[in-house]
Amino acid sequence: MASSDKNHHMTPEQFRQYGRAVVDWIADYYEKVESYPVLSQVKPGEIRKTLPEHPPEKGESLDKMLRDVENLLLPGITHWQSPNFFAYFPANASGPAILGDLLSSGLAVQGMIWATSPACTELETLVLDWLVDMLDLPRKFKSDSTGGGVIQDTASSASLCAVLAAREKVTNYQVNARGGNGKLVAYTSTQGHSSIEKAVKIAGIGKDNLRLIEVDENFAMQPAALEARIKEDLKNGLTPFFVCATVGTTSSHALDPLKEIGEICQRYQLWLHVDAAMAGTAALCPEFRFIHQGLEYADSYCFNPHKWMFTNFDCDCFYVADRNILIKTLSVLPEYLKNKATESGAVIDYRDWHIPMGRRFRSLKLWFVIRHYGIEGLQYLIRKHVQMAQNFKQWVEADSRFEIVAPVPLNLICFRYKGGDDLNEKLLEKLNNTGELYLSHTKLNDQYVIRMCIAQTHTEERHARTAWQKIQQMATALENE
Amino acid sequence: MASSDKNHHMTPEQFRQYGRAVVDWIADYYEKVESYPVLSQVKPGEIRKTLPEHPPEKGESLDKMLRDVENLLLPGITHWQSPNFFAYFPANASGPAILGDLLSSGLAVQGMIWATSPACTELETLVLDWLVDMLDLPRKFKSDSTGGGVIQDTASSASLCAVLAAREKVTNYQVNARGGNGKLVAYTSTQGHSSIEKAVKIAGIGKDNLRLIEVDENFAMQPAALEARIKEDLKNGLTPFFVCATVGTTSSHALDPLKEIGEICQRYQLWLHVDAAMAGTAALCPEFRFIHQGLEYADSYCFNPHKWMFTNFDCDCFYVADRNILIKTLSVLPEYLKNKATESGAVIDYRDWHIPMGRRFRSLKLWFVIRHYGIEGLQYLIRKHVQMAQNFKQWVEADSRFEIVAPVPLNLICFRYKGGDDLNEKLLEKLNNTGELYLSHTKLNDQYVIRMCIAQTHTEERHARTAWQKIQQMATALENE
Repeated sequence: MASSDKNHHMTPEQFRQYGRAVVDWIADYYEKVESYPVLSQVKPGEIRKTLPEHPPEKGESLDKMLRDVENLLLPGITHWQSPNFFAYFPANASGPAILGDLLSSGLAVQGMIWATSPACTELETLVLDWLVDMLDLPRKFKSDSTGGGVIQDTASSASLCAVLAAREKVTNYQVNARGGNGKLVAYTSTQGHSSIEKAVKIAGIGKDNLRLIEVDENFAMQPAALEARIKEDLKNGLTPFFVCATVGTTSSHALDPLKEIGEICQRYQLWLHVDAAMAGTAALCPEFRFIHQGLEYADSYCFNPHKWMFTNFDCDCFYVADRNILIKTLSVLPEYLKNKATESGAVIDYRDWHIPMGRRFRSLKLWFVIRHYGIEGLQYLIRKHVQMAQNFKQWVEADSRFEIVAPVPLNLICFRYKGGDDLNEKLLEKLNNTGELYLSHTKLNDQYVIRMCIAQTHTEERHARTAWQKIQQMATALENE
Repeated sequence: MASSDKNHHMTPEQFRQYGRAVVDWIADYYEKVESYPVLSQVKPGEIRKTLPEHPPEKGESLDKMLRDVENLLLPGITHWQSPNFFAYFPANASGPAILGDLLSSGLAVQGMIWATSPACTELETLVLDWLVDMLDLPRKFKSDSTGGGVIQDTASSASLCAVLAAREKVTNYQVNARGGNGKLVAYTSTQGHSSIEKAVKIAGIGKDNLRLIEVDENFAMQPAALEARIKEDLKNGLTPFFVCATVGTTSSHALDPLKEIGEICQRYQLWLHVDAAMAGTAALCPEFRFIHQGLEYADSYCFNPHKWMFTNFDCDCFYVADRNILIKTLSVLPEYLKNKATESGAVIDYRDWHIPMGRRFRSLKLWFVIRHYGIEGLQYLIRKHVQMAQNFKQWVEADSRFEIVAPVPLNLICFRYKGGDDLNEKLLEKLNNTGELYLSHTKLNDQYVIRMCIAQTHTEERHARTAWQKIQQMATALENE
């Protein structure tokens, strides 16, 4: 292998050769990923202590780095791309996404404004318009309507932007007309994502002004409880301004009733944000579009192709019904970014649609995924995951030692061993310690619950079936202890 | 080429073959990047209208996508990786960074908490510790001290986190003790980055409560003016809480006097954040460490390896002197993320160090860059860029038609043709329209100024020299019009 050029850069020949080595390393990795413990078994500090404490004075070869990845880092990897990964939500990679992202790294454009790479902005707008059609979302989210979509890093950031736009709208246009002391109040359910609390804190609204609304027996927000709380806050002179409804809560995949919540938001002039981070992808299939019933009331919406839609992290799609309010909220235009295209008003400058200014060409990977799989391929895979989850649910129901503790509308099963929390916690820990699968937990009705999410890119029926057998065997072993 | 597997996934063989094709495409791209117009010459909407308005029903081949990238997207690319890119700040890619990022896409772990991939967290902590030594930053920023570092997407997000932590500190621990009405006030110079205004807006402090402090003849913040303004605000019952000092302003690379500003912050108990987004990298070389004089007063600091340090976007390194206050500000711990490692307190969960919850394995590319170049290689390249810029400055000074309008401490030259703003604007526009180089502009002392930043990975002396010749020729052409 030639050494670096006189400027210490990797030579073009080295890039070709090492590039192939990395591509092959990744292909090999996927071929043997099932042989690694899914959940890393290392102790805190164990990885770092194998690595040199000081940076090298002189350059090293990529061969050496690849060996270190293999030998030193892999033991500290929890394998999100293992077909036996059933924890949390998935973070799905796929061949076309990896290669689209590689192209993005190669081109390495910075699409902060239209002018700094028009294709980066225009492809993103196109693909986000495609997704409105693919998921049958309200037309107002399309770029030729009043709204539009943008890729954000995560649903946390998208929710923050929704809170900020809602705050802008109410404080600049409505508080005086509405009366009240201007002290803002936000709402989500007790099952809403932690990022809503984080967003409300960041926006300076204060977590004491976030109301966690009671849920029904299916863990979905109770519209009547929401309305009662809004009325109470209004009576106390406060200013309700924002509701986050969830389509597929993190804990149990509960579906908040969007239509009822939307009607309340309309009645009281509250911004409705809908967080469908994982579940949204299911709407690729017409038979699962019931999850979005009532979405026409939403002022903003997000879902994450980087969870269930085979598009590498980070890729959250965030839509607003009124792009002007979002831009007004986040735009600051310094002299050094002024340009004719921006001044003409004919282009989108996405830096005004989110927190960071810089941005990479993230729509490439999404475009590659949609084109590689086609609508047909994506629907096939989503249907398959949901079918596997429904089968799994039946297996659990057929074993009288276990119980299903929440509805399973799509691909997440919440279940528990009929016994104390300690037993369930022990069961989960022992299962994860085998390294053969990885499950996570939550609490529902104050009970410790095991979560099994079937959504990983390469999970097949055999993986789900083996997982269930292991769970049953481990339960039997615990009974015999 | 084999078609996709029965599940529509790219087969391992396809991944190897297409992966090589993309690697080669990138290598080819770098070999011919100088032949493209640096600034994309397309009109708004021109790229989108060449692309299919609807997503495909059936999957397509990667060959076709690569052809579309080449034929349809490239005309809409502004080539940030061209050695003739001198606009804004650079967004430098390099071979090792691209390949490190490719590995990150392949492993596709989600490092939100330590437990979800210990290596992702531990390598990041290690590399950020390395950089403290490499840049000779204050020891308090190291993980074995009170502080620590984290990779954020951009300096905008880092500055927002600094504002939030400062707000947390003052509102939760100090306002009552200090007196005042609790209405917070932040400070930066008139040359501070627009992200400070954005952060202050996001945090709900309001842009009316951001003071833009006057600068001296070198465009650096005037400490006396800062102190006077703080005193005035205190007299009016307000609560000064945050100062952002800039090491290398965006417009002209001005260096705020950290020591004097730091002493004022200490005196009045204000959080000092130091933004060294581009310039910070220069501190790799001992002779340029004067830029950080006084940094020991900083509560937080950031610089962007994704600008000048050959590490693909996104990679901002954000340091705090007291990690506890940052974590307290941003931590929300839902049940489903609880785990023994977190509870033990022995690990870092980086999701509590920034806005998003999810995070990719970004330290891999940074580790690859540092190891590939070594300290020696990085120093060599930074010195070379600075030397080229100093040469360029002399060329401008030697042509009496032009003037240098700000000090050139490192690698950014601000100059203008001695004539009206219109003439300079026309000069810049005509130069950029040739496609042979790309420069940007700013305003200093209300005058239109041309910015030439010499920092792109592959820029050599010949590129800088040719750029200057073209500028001279274009000026002559304008004179003869």
